[in-house]
Amino acid sequence: MTPRLRGALAPVLTPFTRRLEPDVERFIAHCRWLVDNHAGLAIFGTNSEAASLSVEERLALTDALLEAGIPAAKLLPGTGACSIKDAVRLTRHAVENDAAGVLMIPPFYYKGVSDEGLFRNFAEVIERVGDKRLRIYLYNIPPVSQVPITVALIERLLGAYPDNVAGIKDSSGDWNNTKAYLDNFAGHGFDVFPGSESFLLRGMRNGGAGCISATANVNPGRIAQLFATWSNADADTQQAGLDEIRGIFARYPMIPALKTAIAHYSGDESWVTVRPPLVELTAEQKDSLIDELDRAGFIMPGLAA
Amino acid sequence: MTPRLRGALAPVLTPFTRRLEPDVERFIAHCRWLVDNHAGLAIFGTNSEAASLSVEERLALTDALLEAGIPAAKLLPGTGACSIKDAVRLTRHAVENDAAGVLMIPPFYYKGVSDEGLFRNFAEVIERVGDKRLRIYLYNIPPVSQVPITVALIERLLGAYPDNVAGIKDSSGDWNNTKAYLDNFAGHGFDVFPGSESFLLRGMRNGGAGCISATANVNPGRIAQLFATWSNADADTQQAGLDEIRGIFARYPMIPALKTAIAHYSGDESWVTVRPPLVELTAEQKDSLIDELDRAGFIMPGLAA
Repeated sequence: MTPRLRGALAPVLTPFTRRLEPDVERFIAHCRWLVDNHAGLAIFGTNSEAASLSVEERLALTDALLEAGIPAAKLLPGTGACSIKDAVRLTRHAVENDAAGVLMIPPFYYKGVSDEGLFRNFAEVIERVGDKRLRIYLYNIPPVSQVPITVALIERLLGAYPDNVAGIKDSSGDWNNTKAYLDNFAGHGFDVFPGSESFLLRGMRNGGAGCISATANVNPGRIAQLFATWSNADADTQQAGLDEIRGIFARYPMIPALKTAIAHYSGDESWVTVRPPLVELTAEQKDSLIDELDRAGFIMPGLAA
Repeated sequence: MTPRLRGALAPVLTPFTRRLEPDVERFIAHCRWLVDNHAGLAIFGTNSEAASLSVEERLALTDALLEAGIPAAKLLPGTGACSIKDAVRLTRHAVENDAAGVLMIPPFYYKGVSDEGLFRNFAEVIERVGDKRLRIYLYNIPPVSQVPITVALIERLLGAYPDNVAGIKDSSGDWNNTKAYLDNFAGHGFDVFPGSESFLLRGMRNGGAGCISATANVNPGRIAQLFATWSNADADTQQAGLDEIRGIFARYPMIPALKTAIAHYSGDESWVTVRPPLVELTAEQKDSLIDELDRAGFIMPGLAA
């Protein structure tokens, strides 16, 4: 079995060409930089614009990473989908390539669905993939998906599939919800990742497994550093430093802001491109963001410029 | 050009086998019954569980209908998707097969997106398909998609693509919103379809083009009848009759309730199957639904039993 992936994970941004096609070379380069800066690769998450990619594009990008020598053990691909067919296809591909696990958003089109319906959805995917190596991390992001993952649903899934249900990413933004997951399940082979480094230290002090955070795309080293040293005396100071940078990005639309930062600090303007329905930052937003980051002393060490 | 499709349209239910695969034969038979009962076929809408189907499944089901002799002029496939790649593939297939048009939901994963982002999304699909025959009907269903289609967005799309933007389905459930579409655009080659027959008569009296309604799956003949005779003296009485049946279904989860009704009145129990995350009605819900329908004198004429 691939070892558990823990620590700082980035929902890896997907670069696009000006014609809105996935930019494979820049994607590989960004993944290399993240790994070099001690981050795991949660490719195809919300901040990856994964919903804007077809299944075929996701499979091709994964293959390209593996062919480029990115270790499968660093990969936690998002494989959830509205359609069980798509989720199974993506999940099977990840498992067969020995990814560390998969991050599964529940089907997000229908609203007000029951835990029974969600249980059947995950159970169907697990049964169809039918592979002991499958390690599913659930993805709770109700502000976007509108479909929450309850403690009761996790209990039922763990009861039925203890070897396959490995953890959760909580992007609820609600510490009380993350704490409920930690209190109920942490330490029993179920890894809880807050969806932001704002909750990294609190998470670690309560048995967390790291964090999977948008801003790990631009600030991976310092997030990984706090993960590695959270029991040190300076942990709260480190957390405050992370919060300052996170706070800057949080004042802008997150995905275009992250891409703008990479474009600026690498000198590679093509990075600003997003797929519709997202739009890039305005010139004013860009200037303001970079000004704030510069004043905070923000750097992206080793980024090709 | 295929003539405009107007009148009573059903977002065609997708039957599944007990193994949760699309049931092609029952799908064809249901489409035949709908056409025989004067309904157009808005395949792959919300009530079709389209989000639970893969792109390949949607293409295969469309091909199966055409091969079975269902007229392309009766088809208004849902081709919207979170990914432009998927939307283009589905839309191109519909256009190349001379479908009457396509019904396009906006990308529905990201929330709070701008009209600029939505304009770019639809523009990109229209440009990539690049076919004069393309006739797009926008799909406004904010209770599910959470992404509303504003009057300003429609104006901009009509200005840029007057030959391709052909109308809208409004499933907001808000008559004032439907009325705003009608007041601004009806009668200028832009067809407005309320998303429920509850608004059929009001829609027709304000320049509407019919309705695209879940319950047209089970009550197509009477809805088509009101569309054909809405200026007759008995129109309000007809509308009251439609409202009674609609009101019964609206008291249950709509998709499983419609499938349960077809299963019951056709004697074909396999029709109750839904794909997760939906669940079928409970036995109590089923008994109560059928009891209400029987007491209202509901029938499905000509349904194979």
